[in-house]
Amino acid sequence: MLLEAVYHQPKSQYAYAYDNETLHIRVRTGRGDMDRVSIVWGDKYHFTEDTVTTTDMYIFAQDELFDYYQAEVKPPFRRFAYAFRFEKGSRTVFWNETGFTEGKLASGGVGMLWSPSGMFEFPFLNETDVARPPEWVKDAVFYQIFPERFENGDPSLTPEGAEAWTPDAVPQRDNFFGGDLQGVINRLDYLQDLGITCIYFTPFFEAYSNHKYDTIDYLKVDPQFGDNEKAKELVEKAHEKGIRVMLDAVFNHSGYYFPPFQDVLKHGKYSRFRDWFHIRSYPLANDPLNYDTFGFVPEMPKLNTEHPEVKAYLLETARYWIEDIGADGWRLDVANEVDHRFWREFRDVVKTANPDAYILGEIWHNSLAWLGGDQFDAVMNYPVTNSILDFFVKDEIDAENFMGRLDAIQVSYPKQANEAAFNLLDSHDTPRLLTIADGNKKRMKLAALFQLTFTGAPCIYYGDEVGMDGGADPGCRKPMIWDETAQDHDLFGFYKDMIALRKENRAFRDGSFQFLSAEKGADTVVYERSDEKNRFVILMNKGSRRQKVRLADEAGRTYEEVFGSRSAEVKNRRLDWTLEPLEAVILKQKD
Amino acid sequence: MLLEAVYHQPKSQYAYAYDNETLHIRVRTGRGDMDRVSIVWGDKYHFTEDTVTTTDMYIFAQDELFDYYQAEVKPPFRRFAYAFRFEKGSRTVFWNETGFTEGKLASGGVGMLWSPSGMFEFPFLNETDVARPPEWVKDAVFYQIFPERFENGDPSLTPEGAEAWTPDAVPQRDNFFGGDLQGVINRLDYLQDLGITCIYFTPFFEAYSNHKYDTIDYLKVDPQFGDNEKAKELVEKAHEKGIRVMLDAVFNHSGYYFPPFQDVLKHGKYSRFRDWFHIRSYPLANDPLNYDTFGFVPEMPKLNTEHPEVKAYLLETARYWIEDIGADGWRLDVANEVDHRFWREFRDVVKTANPDAYILGEIWHNSLAWLGGDQFDAVMNYPVTNSILDFFVKDEIDAENFMGRLDAIQVSYPKQANEAAFNLLDSHDTPRLLTIADGNKKRMKLAALFQLTFTGAPCIYYGDEVGMDGGADPGCRKPMIWDETAQDHDLFGFYKDMIALRKENRAFRDGSFQFLSAEKGADTVVYERSDEKNRFVILMNKGSRRQKVRLADEAGRTYEEVFGSRSAEVKNRRLDWTLEPLEAVILKQKD
Repeated sequence: MLLEAVYHQPKSQYAYAYDNETLHIRVRTGRGDMDRVSIVWGDKYHFTEDTVTTTDMYIFAQDELFDYYQAEVKPPFRRFAYAFRFEKGSRTVFWNETGFTEGKLASGGVGMLWSPSGMFEFPFLNETDVARPPEWVKDAVFYQIFPERFENGDPSLTPEGAEAWTPDAVPQRDNFFGGDLQGVINRLDYLQDLGITCIYFTPFFEAYSNHKYDTIDYLKVDPQFGDNEKAKELVEKAHEKGIRVMLDAVFNHSGYYFPPFQDVLKHGKYSRFRDWFHIRSYPLANDPLNYDTFGFVPEMPKLNTEHPEVKAYLLETARYWIEDIGADGWRLDVANEVDHRFWREFRDVVKTANPDAYILGEIWHNSLAWLGGDQFDAVMNYPVTNSILDFFVKDEIDAENFMGRLDAIQVSYPKQANEAAFNLLDSHDTPRLLTIADGNKKRMKLAALFQLTFTGAPCIYYGDEVGMDGGADPGCRKPMIWDETAQDHDLFGFYKDMIALRKENRAFRDGSFQFLSAEKGADTVVYERSDEKNRFVILMNKGSRRQKVRLADEAGRTYEEVFGSRSAEVKNRRLDWTLEPLEAVILKQKD
Repeated sequence: MLLEAVYHQPKSQYAYAYDNETLHIRVRTGRGDMDRVSIVWGDKYHFTEDTVTTTDMYIFAQDELFDYYQAEVKPPFRRFAYAFRFEKGSRTVFWNETGFTEGKLASGGVGMLWSPSGMFEFPFLNETDVARPPEWVKDAVFYQIFPERFENGDPSLTPEGAEAWTPDAVPQRDNFFGGDLQGVINRLDYLQDLGITCIYFTPFFEAYSNHKYDTIDYLKVDPQFGDNEKAKELVEKAHEKGIRVMLDAVFNHSGYYFPPFQDVLKHGKYSRFRDWFHIRSYPLANDPLNYDTFGFVPEMPKLNTEHPEVKAYLLETARYWIEDIGADGWRLDVANEVDHRFWREFRDVVKTANPDAYILGEIWHNSLAWLGGDQFDAVMNYPVTNSILDFFVKDEIDAENFMGRLDAIQVSYPKQANEAAFNLLDSHDTPRLLTIADGNKKRMKLAALFQLTFTGAPCIYYGDEVGMDGGADPGCRKPMIWDETAQDHDLFGFYKDMIALRKENRAFRDGSFQFLSAEKGADTVVYERSDEKNRFVILMNKGSRRQKVRLADEAGRTYEEVFGSRSAEVKNRRLDWTLEPLEAVILKQKD
């Protein structure tokens, strides 16, 4: 046994409450190292040979080095002491907080090699501590709108000098096209037809730039887009169509023209707003920077979110748009640079305004420290983004590596955070998916099909569904193509069908996910999604050659192709299928 | 390289802010596996070959399976991207968030095998998130007082039927002896003489039992002990002598006679206090229990700390004793069964009342989930207790195992939590140290000497210092022996001298700690404590045979014995010393 590979941490992503009665317990071992892993558990105040239970654990994730085991348990008194039992050949090893011990099981019972005081513990399941993202997020299909570029619905608001809204328009860092909130209202039917259930708006608060990440007034819609009443109308009309609305909170830093920052620029250390920022000396200077900023951008001064007035202002912002305007959630810009304490108070304010509001952090790295139930519901799932792109689109990694990276993410967080994760493939910050795929629509579809059948809520960047392309900012921010002759109707149909499939089948939204095949060096992956009603097997080939796939399966099973007429039957306990280059097939198991 | 042994988790005990400018970064590797480990780091917005720094890491802890490396870094913009570099023979492996890569270093620079987006990150060091226990705790020597058994200073309060206060008095679960707060005031000189700097009181609030863990009124001193004015007088008089006072908060559960619980017993589901507890059905029943309790004790109903009224009552309790009475900290009973959310609010209330108050959790198991800076300053360090007892007192483990267990604790938490840890050897919940040692005073002294020279604040259980013995509760709760003819003066002198040594030398309180020798199978351990002023080498033999100790050391060094007249000199780069059975020697390096 490779004991160095064994890992567990109490009260972490390895031991957490999934709901008010269920604990998930996980343990890591060397890949393929153990024959059997189980958990020996009982009440922490009554832990004896007679009272403990042994529960088998199952492998729920794997990567190149490790197997990850999980078990779900429901301790009757909501408290729990436990140890792990590892078996390999004739060897049995127990592991608890005091270390590893070689041991033998008495027949039908457990070894008495430990004392309860040395057990791992989940001391008490207090309901208020359970991480509980809103239920609706699992079922959501998001659509990201960059308001300046989605639709011009009110020409009277269009900025002077705005450019023509044509399919070949060229976005620049500083040009305008005239998108606004009325435009979005006008296109709600389109979104409903596509199957969207939640819009994610990049900021629409008053700001100087076209992207509006340089806020001037957090409590006011930018006049180019409309006013607060228009925002409320938009939210209400969207709700009528079953579409929620998530806004973008840029609380890490303000814009250059934010009045308190202007006051500091003007009055220096005599400004009454000087402590709203992190300033090291006066007057403010750029070279070297003598105040904290986002990155090294002097125009984006970091807000002092520890200051009571700043907190009060931003928390009122958080409350206002949820409670008074009716928005359904906040996406938090540069979320990992703001203090944890602020986010805990933010959560209280937002969830008091609407317990069902979604709190989503923009974090590109490991985000465990924000996903304990006290801060965010979930994060933007860039590790999933990169894994999907690297495998299906860029063709840079093999199936085993793809599986390992995705499974490692599942292990990185509590299950509920992964179920509510925000899975994007591109955004206003990256090249568009079709461009990353070098225009190869088949690769784009492979990526989107995986995204739309994976755990977590998918998000489509506006226009991807009609074949829009574009490189990194500003290229990815073209005005939406509404000219039907310039839209890709095949792609639109693909997205619409896939969204419908996801919405019709809970297995894709809330079912179990498991890889059935992901071999070293392979171009093909096979995985299943299933719930108590349905079981789907998805076979994908990201390679340029035809591939035969053979899977062990249960005798007698038959499958039918979703979106197709082919079928398959398990013969000699094997399922055989041939995949064309860059083909994906979804099979549904017949009753 | 054993890659399965490598472990790191961003934003955890493996990567945390130690103060407002310093990050501690740790990584785990297989024991003895690597030749060199370093961290490659730079600003997260400016991470290129030219701008990154490589910092060597050092082994700061070891156990049977692992080496634990650490480095301290001060990123100029308080944000930080990093990767690890492992070297073994001619092989170099880099590791970041995307995995391991084999790589070669360009001369003088770093390999460019990664992109900044795949680095580990400490996104921003926000001051409010830094875990910062009170500075005074490092310097403290605690003394635990069980108020009913320390001294009877006011006979008018002595309960009817109280038994005689004699050295051979026999404590029972339900008898009384008449200890009170005036008694403690009368003995402050004694404590000052011993060198105590903080009293830890088990509860003195109104309750039914002699131990007072069954609270009736959290805002009132038990009439057997005095009144709130007397508590205030005690705190003030203690402060005058440089002695702080820590109280005991039993917030997990109330006593049976707590009026709200009595109301529920009487009125059942019609009680206005029904939601103050966790009740599953009415009327309340014991068999089976239909409400949550501490353990399975029906008389100790678990409080619903999620209920606004309960929270308000307990938080006012937390504030009152700190702000109005002047207490210096709270020890939190059964701290891990109360919700995290409550403790975060508790911390805010206590630190607002006194930023220097100490918040100490009673947790017997891994406590990382409470030590992130948002809840407790430290925990009662039972894993250290058990390691010291198992090695020095029970003679059950060898030196290597002892080192491994202690080092594993250092790795389990941020350094500041270990510096402020509460190191006890016995308490009102365990047999007394002398009894655990079967009356062997030499073993008792070994344990106490280690405790008093180790990282973290030591606590002496009342009377240990005069040779009191006693088994598990109630045996360990005898009335304090004040009869000088019955006191062990040798032991008292030993404690007094050791406390003075610790207080006179910062090296023991705030210096580095390192094992110099802790071999497999060995009875001897050698460790050093040092700061910029002094360096001490402590040699201990827990075995029953004389042992020769030989250590590699720097040529020319000489040592003198503390509390003794012997000296030693490094010859041929070796330090030799002979230890008698159960002997401990403290050497101080001469300039």
